[in-house]
Amino acid sequence: MPKLRVQGMSVSLDGFAAGPSQSESDPLGLNGRRLHEWMMNTTTLRSQMGLTGGTTGIDDEMVADESVEIGAIIMGRNTFGPSRGPWPDFEWKGWWGDDPPFHCPIFVLTHFERPSFDAEGGTSFHFITDGIESALRQAKAAAGDKDVSLMGGDTVSQYLSAGLIDEMYIIQVPILLGDGSRLFSSSENPLEWELKSIVASDAVTHVRLHRPEI
Amino acid sequence: MPKLRVQGMSVSLDGFAAGPSQSESDPLGLNGRRLHEWMMNTTTLRSQMGLTGGTTGIDDEMVADESVEIGAIIMGRNTFGPSRGPWPDFEWKGWWGDDPPFHCPIFVLTHFERPSFDAEGGTSFHFITDGIESALRQAKAAAGDKDVSLMGGDTVSQYLSAGLIDEMYIIQVPILLGDGSRLFSSSENPLEWELKSIVASDAVTHVRLHRPEI
Repeated sequence: MPKLRVQGMSVSLDGFAAGPSQSESDPLGLNGRRLHEWMMNTTTLRSQMGLTGGTTGIDDEMVADESVEIGAIIMGRNTFGPSRGPWPDFEWKGWWGDDPPFHCPIFVLTHFERPSFDAEGGTSFHFITDGIESALRQAKAAAGDKDVSLMGGDTVSQYLSAGLIDEMYIIQVPILLGDGSRLFSSSENPLEWELKSIVASDAVTHVRLHRPEI
Repeated sequence: MPKLRVQGMSVSLDGFAAGPSQSESDPLGLNGRRLHEWMMNTTTLRSQMGLTGGTTGIDDEMVADESVEIGAIIMGRNTFGPSRGPWPDFEWKGWWGDDPPFHCPIFVLTHFERPSFDAEGGTSFHFITDGIESALRQAKAAAGDKDVSLMGGDTVSQYLSAGLIDEMYIIQVPILLGDGSRLFSSSENPLEWELKSIVASDAVTHVRLHRPEI
């Protein structure tokens, strides 16, 4: 049974998944980049960027882990791009250039309709205006036997409150951002989660939680 | 130079230092007790409670660590007791019975005056109505060469925003509480913290942060 998962979301000690004042020149918000420093020097990520060298150890093993196969992604409008409100035009194609690193269909939650489009490497973008359950249904249909993952703090919060997430892999980063997008807003169903594993490097803690099958 | 420190504050994955609906029968709020489960079975804590047996390992070593000597404590009114507003009377002496486990002067932040009183074992309670800086001054004077520690999420937040904390030892507990008292509210000076150490057991992560001396 395909699952809905948070597959590697970095969160600061004070609970933010991005810094304040996100913009086109600063997509992760003020100092949000520091949330991802732990993986930027890993051998695996450097290799994906065409670079040699890099660190090995726990953080690299976590980045290299391919045990989870993702067949579709749901993200929020804010993760897709910096514009808000009605689309000014359809020129913006995402932060990731012509060949995004996803290689699967992406479903973008928005209040404003926009035609689907294809990028290179098997990535395509689809814009969903009728809510998170519709997006999940369409993403699961597109993912086949693989899992669906979520991107963006606001999107995770919405699916969490609705009780729709099966597994979460969170990276706790011991920095304070002070302000930004909270990964976890208040939730009415918090207690159904069980710890699956916890492992710390000398930089961050990798936490995996799942909801026990009933 | 004596320091102001957060000396062992447990916080949930979603950022709460206590659950919602704190009351006299439920001082840590709904499910707040789960924040402290990691230490309840350690050999050191059981021994302090007059019990034998218990777990050893990372969590026990952290509880047993006596490298920090605390000479005074500052806590919020909500940590001292369940009543809010003007004191109904002076009968309430804290949650901890006749012999509180602190053995040092406690400074309680409140808007309502109340006389100091002594408990057994060297613990005394003093009620400070003229603000956090006054409380810090009095606590440092009382602590002598030892450090001052903070208790209570709201109190930590206030001193953090004021830039007055020198060191923080936080225990990240991988559970969701959904609601309650946030340990970290928004802060304007978040970036001055440096990671001192991080170590995870199979239950929680122990994180120590400090502000570099300038």
